[in-house]
Amino acid sequence: MPEMRHNIALDVMGGDHAPDEIVLGAVKAAQAEDINLLLVGDRDEIERILPDNRLENISIVPSYGVITEDDHPLEGMKRKPEASIIVAAGLVREGLAHAYVSMGSTGATMAAGIMALGTLDGIDRPALGGPFLGLVPNTTIIDIGSNVDSKPSQLLSYGVLGSVFAKLFSGLESPRVGLLSVGSEKTKGNRQVRETYDMFKESGLNFIGNIEGIDIPMGNVDVVVCDGFVGNILMKYTEGLGIAFADYIKTRISPELAFEVGALLSELTNLTNYGAHLGGSPLLGLNGVGIVGHGRSHSDSVAAAVSLAKVALDRGLVPLMRDELANIRQQLKMD
Amino acid sequence: MPEMRHNIALDVMGGDHAPDEIVLGAVKAAQAEDINLLLVGDRDEIERILPDNRLENISIVPSYGVITEDDHPLEGMKRKPEASIIVAAGLVREGLAHAYVSMGSTGATMAAGIMALGTLDGIDRPALGGPFLGLVPNTTIIDIGSNVDSKPSQLLSYGVLGSVFAKLFSGLESPRVGLLSVGSEKTKGNRQVRETYDMFKESGLNFIGNIEGIDIPMGNVDVVVCDGFVGNILMKYTEGLGIAFADYIKTRISPELAFEVGALLSELTNLTNYGAHLGGSPLLGLNGVGIVGHGRSHSDSVAAAVSLAKVALDRGLVPLMRDELANIRQQLKMD
Repeated sequence: MPEMRHNIALDVMGGDHAPDEIVLGAVKAAQAEDINLLLVGDRDEIERILPDNRLENISIVPSYGVITEDDHPLEGMKRKPEASIIVAAGLVREGLAHAYVSMGSTGATMAAGIMALGTLDGIDRPALGGPFLGLVPNTTIIDIGSNVDSKPSQLLSYGVLGSVFAKLFSGLESPRVGLLSVGSEKTKGNRQVRETYDMFKESGLNFIGNIEGIDIPMGNVDVVVCDGFVGNILMKYTEGLGIAFADYIKTRISPELAFEVGALLSELTNLTNYGAHLGGSPLLGLNGVGIVGHGRSHSDSVAAAVSLAKVALDRGLVPLMRDELANIRQQLKMD
Repeated sequence: MPEMRHNIALDVMGGDHAPDEIVLGAVKAAQAEDINLLLVGDRDEIERILPDNRLENISIVPSYGVITEDDHPLEGMKRKPEASIIVAAGLVREGLAHAYVSMGSTGATMAAGIMALGTLDGIDRPALGGPFLGLVPNTTIIDIGSNVDSKPSQLLSYGVLGSVFAKLFSGLESPRVGLLSVGSEKTKGNRQVRETYDMFKESGLNFIGNIEGIDIPMGNVDVVVCDGFVGNILMKYTEGLGIAFADYIKTRISPELAFEVGALLSELTNLTNYGAHLGGSPLLGLNGVGIVGHGRSHSDSVAAAVSLAKVALDRGLVPLMRDELANIRQQLKMD
């Protein structure tokens, strides 16, 4: 008996290069993957961009309006109830799609998901995370989104969510979870981290203690737990550093080497922008599969984000998260 | 009339490679610079390491005991009142030295300086900062030390201190000061940054608003203001990334290129460990010149830290800081 084909809803109107690059990415994904794609957006626009010989596994679901980065997510949702991201997440709630994907506003993608699907028990707000540095492709950092001023209990949940992510996506049996700080001793760090340390210690996670910045590229940790403020700065800093390194190396090599080193340079840039390579990050802790893709995505990254949704469904990300969260709550006697 | 020779007190007992590498670094500095060096530490040890034909501009000041990273700085100071760092800072208080330098515990170096010399008006605790990424050698980041959970008024003072530092050491007339956050809009960031934004706006500094991680390596900012928790993580992350990059490149180049690329690799490692190249950072906001060198320093970095003290004295770092702080206080009507 063949496996059921997953239906994936793609918000075609969100992202810096929407709708064209999103639709083109959808076509690539529909060709590469055994899925049904529901393109959510302005029907005329989508039909203009889609090639004439439309793939049988692509269909269009009309929506009206877009919530952009300039909108406050909740106000935007009120003012534009038929916006693409709301319709896309709604398709999952109605059981018409199994996952939704957007390159649009992170806040709106998260808010629409929470409204439509809710969060898993014990999670207030989903977190964003995943590998972000190609030099250590199995190292997950969480949160990289915009959960700032996280409470200790939130940081602990990032550890659980990141750990499940690392098991499923990096195949690690018992991921080493570290709390990002400024020294390895339990007393080192800001108030947030110091108040969190003991909860991790008792969590039953494979907690290796505080880690420092240098431990990330050295591969000394599998799941880097941090506030979204720190994670976001690190991720964007890494991206810029890759570009700056490549520029620097260009000025330092002799012209005869330019060709051989050229390939290396584009590798460097990819390694430091690993998120784009993966296409995005699942909303970890959401009661369903929602993928936040990169705003600057071109078609290849869009297709990668869609594939990521399929992988999350195939590997049972959400049920596994639910089980692990229940385990931890029992371990910490939180129920 | 020749300029007065500066006396610089060097804590010979602090640092991972103390006392040998510190003494050897002192010899290098004494040969290279027109200064008098006062080596503070165990007299027998110092005499064992010093070459027989001792330079006339090196003298020994005996001390007893060391405050290490394992000691709580204040408790250590109580228990070991004649420890090297206390004696070194005390020489500045007594007017016998013009600056002190240590590769030992940052906390103890700071505490000893505050006790001996106090802080400038408006400063609770000194901050550490300076260039940290050789790709943008004129970009200063402050705080990189261990001032965590900084209040908005502290972050503002980092902006002032960093700005003066950038004027003196990078020769910038009006350094662009940016507040490190997760988005450029004033509403983006954690509570700490959001509460600080308006103070910067009114400060009279050349405030360019919030910056993101990517802006640092892109050279879009001259003074990066952040909590010491974030700055320390970024600095150590950068160091690790340089090592990991170099290792990666080694595996990817053909053996014929190894020689030519080899030089480039060691450059990369230096560029991402720029602090070691500079030797350390002055304690900005201290009412005197104190240099925190890197714990892992070998003799070259020790000599660089000593030179940094001389530069700070020659360029009038402390009087200029004092003036600028008074200006800002007047601007913000804080007096």
